[in-house]
Amino acid sequence: MKTLLRVLAGEAVWPPPIWLMRQAGRYLPEYCALRAEAGDFIALCTNPALAAEVTLQPVRRFGMDAAILFSDILMLPWALGYGLRFAAGEGPVLPQLQTADIARLDRHRLPDAIAPILETVRRVRNGLDPSAALIGFAGGPFTVACYMVEGGGSKDFARTRLMAYQAPEDFARLIEVLTEASIVYLAAQIEAGAEVVMLFDSWAGVLSPALFAAYVTAPAQHIVAALAARFPTVPVIGFPRLGGTLLGSYAAATGVAAVGLDTSVSPQVARALVPARVALQGNLDPMALLAGGEAMQREVASLLAAVRGGPHVFNLGHGIVPQTPPEHVAALVRLLRAA
Amino acid sequence: MKTLLRVLAGEAVWPPPIWLMRQAGRYLPEYCALRAEAGDFIALCTNPALAAEVTLQPVRRFGMDAAILFSDILMLPWALGYGLRFAAGEGPVLPQLQTADIARLDRHRLPDAIAPILETVRRVRNGLDPSAALIGFAGGPFTVACYMVEGGGSKDFARTRLMAYQAPEDFARLIEVLTEASIVYLAAQIEAGAEVVMLFDSWAGVLSPALFAAYVTAPAQHIVAALAARFPTVPVIGFPRLGGTLLGSYAAATGVAAVGLDTSVSPQVARALVPARVALQGNLDPMALLAGGEAMQREVASLLAAVRGGPHVFNLGHGIVPQTPPEHVAALVRLLRAA
Repeated sequence: MKTLLRVLAGEAVWPPPIWLMRQAGRYLPEYCALRAEAGDFIALCTNPALAAEVTLQPVRRFGMDAAILFSDILMLPWALGYGLRFAAGEGPVLPQLQTADIARLDRHRLPDAIAPILETVRRVRNGLDPSAALIGFAGGPFTVACYMVEGGGSKDFARTRLMAYQAPEDFARLIEVLTEASIVYLAAQIEAGAEVVMLFDSWAGVLSPALFAAYVTAPAQHIVAALAARFPTVPVIGFPRLGGTLLGSYAAATGVAAVGLDTSVSPQVARALVPARVALQGNLDPMALLAGGEAMQREVASLLAAVRGGPHVFNLGHGIVPQTPPEHVAALVRLLRAA
Repeated sequence: MKTLLRVLAGEAVWPPPIWLMRQAGRYLPEYCALRAEAGDFIALCTNPALAAEVTLQPVRRFGMDAAILFSDILMLPWALGYGLRFAAGEGPVLPQLQTADIARLDRHRLPDAIAPILETVRRVRNGLDPSAALIGFAGGPFTVACYMVEGGGSKDFARTRLMAYQAPEDFARLIEVLTEASIVYLAAQIEAGAEVVMLFDSWAGVLSPALFAAYVTAPAQHIVAALAARFPTVPVIGFPRLGGTLLGSYAAATGVAAVGLDTSVSPQVARALVPARVALQGNLDPMALLAGGEAMQREVASLLAAVRGGPHVFNLGHGIVPQTPPEHVAALVRLLRAA
């Protein structure tokens, strides 16, 4: 069995398998060369030949243990007919959600809209080294809702949190629609060849514990249960970023196979909070990878000492930054293989 | 004894005492009226008559259990001769730190520069309701360093983290200088009348566990020990914001009397991680206070149920937002007094 899948089944494989969040991206010259051909970012995500090639580049170059579909969490609302564009240098731009928009999200558009993404999944699976696993993904419904309500990124997603308090029925309905669409989307990725799926709930950490339970944990639990009913052997990795003290209840309630740890999390404390059957994934500081050399070696040694003995997937605690020298990534993989 | 001091001595006072981060500020019409008189923000912080009045306003209006000195964490580097201005609507602006700047930080300037701030402390203490306690504060050395290295705020303080990895000796020296200056500054506030001091380490959560131990926990431990040697009865509240899973080791190692919880923290999990003698402070979502009504009541009830039985100081998980209606704050205080 592929090492990633063994760890996600609860086995403490050593050295742990490795892949990196945003491992396909701007720090790679072969990505930048191909990126220029593609037109805008959405055009790249919906071009199966280019998206598959970009997905495979880091696996080929570094021998990663997993490929992760090259796409974006906002391709789901886009596929439901919600406006989306990526403005150069300023991230995603969407309409600021109005209540009436929720009923207009159109699940009938989904199959056609995601067809090229599923074709990418099939091509990657066919082109992937047999020892590497293919990870599909979606955004956590809360994080996707954040971008819709704010109309893009935000420092603290204040408008979203205020909506959760002031219009709880509308907000719950929005989360419900996104949860159901995520199930359809992830099931289709699995049918197309994804062997693992991951839920990126990047802004989970802005919520109070009560709202986190309602809008992060409960939707993830619903998604995991719906996928498990159809695909009992396909593991789900949950990444409620900045969840900290809530990682234990999240892992126990949702039934995820692994929990992603952001850079700030103590792996030892996370191990104590999260049920023993659940793997941990993470959490090297992307800045330590950017720095490289001794600083990186020290951080890696400290992380490996903390996770040894339990099921662990080596990763960063946040996406790789564009300035990262590719040779630092190669050095990291060598360091890990020799652990 | 004042209720805040009883809780900080480890007593589970019920209902818990209350004060709110940024309780003196723009949501109060009496603050805005006075703010217009003061000139720029630094002028306000160094005007004892106006700063004392602003500090006392929320205690008078709401009957808070504590006043917190009206100032800013960046007044410390300012007092060491480091450039600082507050640009309208864009927050603090400082020079981006160069290595040579570290040796130029001038502790001999400190006594004269902080004299008006200490005069504010004396005036507040004289004017304060005898049941309310006066809290002095400083920024955590890491957070102050963040603003200096970046030259202002930042999304992720990437330049600071990179410096910590790439120039560890310079960074450690910067933290050391700020730690020593913080001890002098906080000791002077205590001598002027502060009964409690708080360390605001707002960006502690961007660090990996290893850097957090070195640059958040160790400096706080040093500050607490130095103050305890001179002022054994004055409690220190530590607030390593977004510290999550690291709150337990922080509380145990530093010897703080209380740990501040940001909005994302589960009070139950924090209680389990933090030694029983250490009080918790927090952590109502400022957006729940802004929303008011039933949403606020539900969040308050959930928080109170979670902290009952242990020493607790009621507060927000982050500063009050300027749009907050003052009557929501009054309603919160009533709700708490009736708990």
